Amino acid sequence: MTRTCPTPHHEDDVVLIGHGAGGRLTAELLDTLVLPAFNRASGPLEDAALLPGYRELVISTDSFVVSPLFFPGGDIGSLAVHGTVNDLAMRGARPLALSVSLIVEEGLPLAELRSVLGSLGKAAQAVRVPVITGDTKVVGRGAADKLFINTTGIGQRHGSLHPSAALARPGDAVLLSGPIGLHGTTVLSTREGLGFEADIASDTRPLHRLVGALAPLGEHVHTLRDPTRGGLAAALGEIARDSSVAVEIDEHTLPVPEAVAAACDLLGLDPLIVANEGCLVAFIAPSAADDALAAMRSVPEGRDAVRIGDVLPDGPAGRVTLRTLVGARRVVDMPLGEQLPRIC
Amino acid sequence: MTRTCPTPHHEDDVVLIGHGAGGRLTAELLDTLVLPAFNRASGPLEDAALLPGYRELVISTDSFVVSPLFFPGGDIGSLAVHGTVNDLAMRGARPLALSVSLIVEEGLPLAELRSVLGSLGKAAQAVRVPVITGDTKVVGRGAADKLFINTTGIGQRHGSLHPSAALARPGDAVLLSGPIGLHGTTVLSTREGLGFEADIASDTRPLHRLVGALAPLGEHVHTLRDPTRGGLAAALGEIARDSSVAVEIDEHTLPVPEAVAAACDLLGLDPLIVANEGCLVAFIAPSAADDALAAMRSVPEGRDAVRIGDVLPDGPAGRVTLRTLVGARRVVDMPLGEQLPRIC
Repeated sequence: MTRTCPTPHHEDDVVLIGHGAGGRLTAELLDTLVLPAFNRASGPLEDAALLPGYRELVISTDSFVVSPLFFPGGDIGSLAVHGTVNDLAMRGARPLALSVSLIVEEGLPLAELRSVLGSLGKAAQAVRVPVITGDTKVVGRGAADKLFINTTGIGQRHGSLHPSAALARPGDAVLLSGPIGLHGTTVLSTREGLGFEADIASDTRPLHRLVGALAPLGEHVHTLRDPTRGGLAAALGEIARDSSVAVEIDEHTLPVPEAVAAACDLLGLDPLIVANEGCLVAFIAPSAADDALAAMRSVPEGRDAVRIGDVLPDGPAGRVTLRTLVGARRVVDMPLGEQLPRIC
Repeated sequence: MTRTCPTPHHEDDVVLIGHGAGGRLTAELLDTLVLPAFNRASGPLEDAALLPGYRELVISTDSFVVSPLFFPGGDIGSLAVHGTVNDLAMRGARPLALSVSLIVEEGLPLAELRSVLGSLGKAAQAVRVPVITGDTKVVGRGAADKLFINTTGIGQRHGSLHPSAALARPGDAVLLSGPIGLHGTTVLSTREGLGFEADIASDTRPLHRLVGALAPLGEHVHTLRDPTRGGLAAALGEIARDSSVAVEIDEHTLPVPEAVAAACDLLGLDPLIVANEGCLVAFIAPSAADDALAAMRSVPEGRDAVRIGDVLPDGPAGRVTLRTLVGARRVVDMPLGEQLPRIC
């Protein structure tokens, strides 16, 4: 019942893993089924929504189903804090409060639950965001896989920042705050025991300070997005679509760590579609691009920030292209479905 | 690792179904494991929390794991709206906005998902609360049971109302807005095919109007609570504990529908511990008790409101007693664990 499937195929009329991948299938599920139920037009989908009547407050919700619960660099607890804090940050907001809701499978060792919650609490404290309310549900063995965590965050916007996925403009510089591909390859390698997890770790970390560093640039900051599910390809594709612009990035500028490249080679994955949990892309007015890069590099989490491309002066709305190392151009497609399930 | 288990029993060091039941095991899990992780003292646990810096705004989160997804009177979609709207209402707030986060099992028929979301959207519209943000995750077959829904709500308090589980006072009248036991027995009967579901339906409904009707009574409204998981016994037990008062209710005033009584008889359940999703208990200053009862009866969802008891002038803090039909008194214990799993 999706757009790509105009004639009903009854065997397909079920939810597929790919519907949760953050790619085209997810977008179709949202457009055809979720948003109509809520009387929402399929306009730009932001990482966080404005609270009616309180224009400085934004809200974001995320359910975390990552498997395994623990991986190099983090666990589902820290990830649940960072993921929601970062979604708030992408709307130019600092976190005010978090809610935490647990769905626990009967039989989960209390030691694992304690460890995850300790990590969650520590991550929240590091960001100075209080956990103000919560909920705990337990389901029988086999009715869930160990532990799922929902975090919902309320954030307060920096007065000067109003970034939106719909505000990228021709000429904008496209900046990336750090290396890509670490989170997805780390989780996958840990889950499947591929061995790369000895050399890499998830980049899971909060990005609110990095956004704070950009706040003085105000209106010059057009768009912020953290390329999580679907990776950089999905993030750029959504921005190009929602802003009706064409984006071009340079392959030689892309910071792909060696171990990520090796893992992707082995797995047949494109690093562009691998999830990240600790970097962001910023679309910045050209006059402020150098200042923005300097501001990003002024905080540890943006130390390796680079300019990876531009919004083209003209070009088909919604198109993302990559200038390859040998100078050719290829179109970067939105990933269709799930190549990396349960990464976050 | 719970309070009742001072010597470690390694075979018990796992999460039990009862940890999610809203009874004593849940309280112990919260006190010993969840709240310490978040640096929270184990003070009164309210249905919704105040947002720091915005004292008129309250937040509540709930994950719904009810099985089956559809039952007489509602489904997981409408329940997810009502549950969170009601938690906000119990802090004297009307709902401003909802977030909705889905965890879907691969293979769920799209028709079922569409039906649930349609019901969710309709319930939200009936309450005039916009769904402003969301998230969708898909997990593989067997990693979840069909569909879990988290809703998180932001509410704005009626200026006059500041109810709290810690504010019940000696002499307060204890009012109940309607019959008890319908939701839990309906879901259980549907799940197990017991046949009672032909005669009963869940009471799932929003209670914000009922609370609105009480708003003119202002400070006389000491405590509001909807007796969901753990039923009336858990709600009264928590209030008695958090307010350090003794509560006594009269069995002959308790509205237990005949079909509920029959189902409870068969199942060996006490209607006092069965979950409700459409009634509330209100602790009201004695001088305003009659006005409060009249106000509750003025809206359809409070038509059958009754006074079921009082806060005793003295008596052991935290104790709830029932005066039985034959005039004896028995202590109403907080339910220990789970007698009715996955009711909400």
